[in-house]
Amino acid sequence: LLDVSAGQELVLTTDVLVEGVHFLPDSAPRSIGHRALAVNLSDIAAMGAAPAWALLSLTLPEPDELWLGDFAAGFHALARLHGVALVGGNLSRGPRSVTVQLAGLVPRGDALRRTTAHVGDLVCVSGTVGDAGAGVALRQGRLAAGAAEADWLCRRFEYPTPRVELGQRLRGIASACIDVSDGLLGDLQRLAAASGCGADVEIGQLPVSAALRAAAGADAWRRSLAGGEDYELCFAVPPARLPTLRALGAELAVACTPCAILRAEPGIALHRDGGVIQFSHSPFDHFAH
Amino acid sequence: LLDVSAGQELVLTTDVLVEGVHFLPDSAPRSIGHRALAVNLSDIAAMGAAPAWALLSLTLPEPDELWLGDFAAGFHALARLHGVALVGGNLSRGPRSVTVQLAGLVPRGDALRRTTAHVGDLVCVSGTVGDAGAGVALRQGRLAAGAAEADWLCRRFEYPTPRVELGQRLRGIASACIDVSDGLLGDLQRLAAASGCGADVEIGQLPVSAALRAAAGADAWRRSLAGGEDYELCFAVPPARLPTLRALGAELAVACTPCAILRAEPGIALHRDGGVIQFSHSPFDHFAH
Repeated sequence: LLDVSAGQELVLTTDVLVEGVHFLPDSAPRSIGHRALAVNLSDIAAMGAAPAWALLSLTLPEPDELWLGDFAAGFHALARLHGVALVGGNLSRGPRSVTVQLAGLVPRGDALRRTTAHVGDLVCVSGTVGDAGAGVALRQGRLAAGAAEADWLCRRFEYPTPRVELGQRLRGIASACIDVSDGLLGDLQRLAAASGCGADVEIGQLPVSAALRAAAGADAWRRSLAGGEDYELCFAVPPARLPTLRALGAELAVACTPCAILRAEPGIALHRDGGVIQFSHSPFDHFAH
Repeated sequence: LLDVSAGQELVLTTDVLVEGVHFLPDSAPRSIGHRALAVNLSDIAAMGAAPAWALLSLTLPEPDELWLGDFAAGFHALARLHGVALVGGNLSRGPRSVTVQLAGLVPRGDALRRTTAHVGDLVCVSGTVGDAGAGVALRQGRLAAGAAEADWLCRRFEYPTPRVELGQRLRGIASACIDVSDGLLGDLQRLAAASGCGADVEIGQLPVSAALRAAAGADAWRRSLAGGEDYELCFAVPPARLPTLRALGAELAVACTPCAILRAEPGIALHRDGGVIQFSHSPFDHFAH
């Protein structure tokens, strides 16, 4: 968060997609182009900032115009949608990987942070979570589903929807915000801990899509907590602002589902049918992913 | 070049170093950390901007604390020297590569460009060129030199000196500027063409170091034109400003050597002892490098 002008602060973020780690060698290049920008847009959205300028660094083992054309189509379609200008970058020989840096702007002092939630705030999640993780599992044969559900879940992984407009509109409504990139449980833990809180999660309130429910059945809630690659927003809202949030969700046609409440006691407790349940979840590790 | 405030413009640049392409597997991690930042500082310097904030994305096959410690030492020593704050980044599993994004600031309208030189301007080069390329050749056994010369030339590759202060001070003196990353001949061609000019180069005036002269002998001038990885500045100066430039060079203790003059006729002609000589030089190709 950088102080560049009298009225606005600059936000810079970067993320890397590496072949074999963040995408498979047979991934559609259009999806890779979309995701490379989407993951960065999601970071900017989580700070309540407006995306502005991108730099793109690409390393490829050899020139491949067909691959580049499809990659660029995926990147530019999403860039146009959000008014992002590609202002520079870099093309180099090397193992296939994509690094995007994104700069955004936010009115001074208005940026959303992770550290500013309070005990008693409700934690809400945009859209649905767990779909993208299920899409990866489907692609890898670790999960089965009907054709329609499988298509939808895979698309949720391949073409995530960063919540750019929602993030900006949450300024003045949310008390803290994070984007869900590593799985809801991990990112909620981060937000709560950064704000000096713990959280009580109501399993029955988790936003689980019909497709995930159909594919994963009784396991759907576990996938919604641990999935990863969602690029939804997880944010805290003081209860008094819930009506404002509901109106905003309706206006933007984005579900914003309260599913947890911040508490003073550290840690995350999962509640279901009036009881506390156990769920072991390894924290995200970039080197084990 | 981005308009962010009433008084200043934001400059964003990025560059990638990939193992096996831009550095060898046995390269000192301290040197890689230094170079990853230096190449970006050089881009910022060439625009006459002041470096401000960096993002660092690192992909490594596995965690390696020793490597990371040395890498960070090289990066941070140079960052401190130039007042650059590392404000974010990214660590991921993958083939070893380093991507740095650097943001700089320049007073509105004062940035140096490549396109604004004029016929009759002198082209000057900071420091000496060809050393780093000779350092790489030495490392790869394609060139031999005495121990002292070899050490010095290798250091010029491993720890280049971006001309950060010089670049900013050239505002108002230089009519156009580019940094020498791909070899002087190629980058001079770019500057001249971007300004709608050609250039006459005086071979005898090229800034060649004593070490390169000792190592390369009669071939030194070819290496000074084609070397690459120099990260010196190549800039045009109207003749009337040459005294001002000389005073600046003396103040900063950086040699600024006039070695070419811009002409109306496109292309680059090399002159030596009153005659025109031929030198075939392939344009830099990221995929053949």
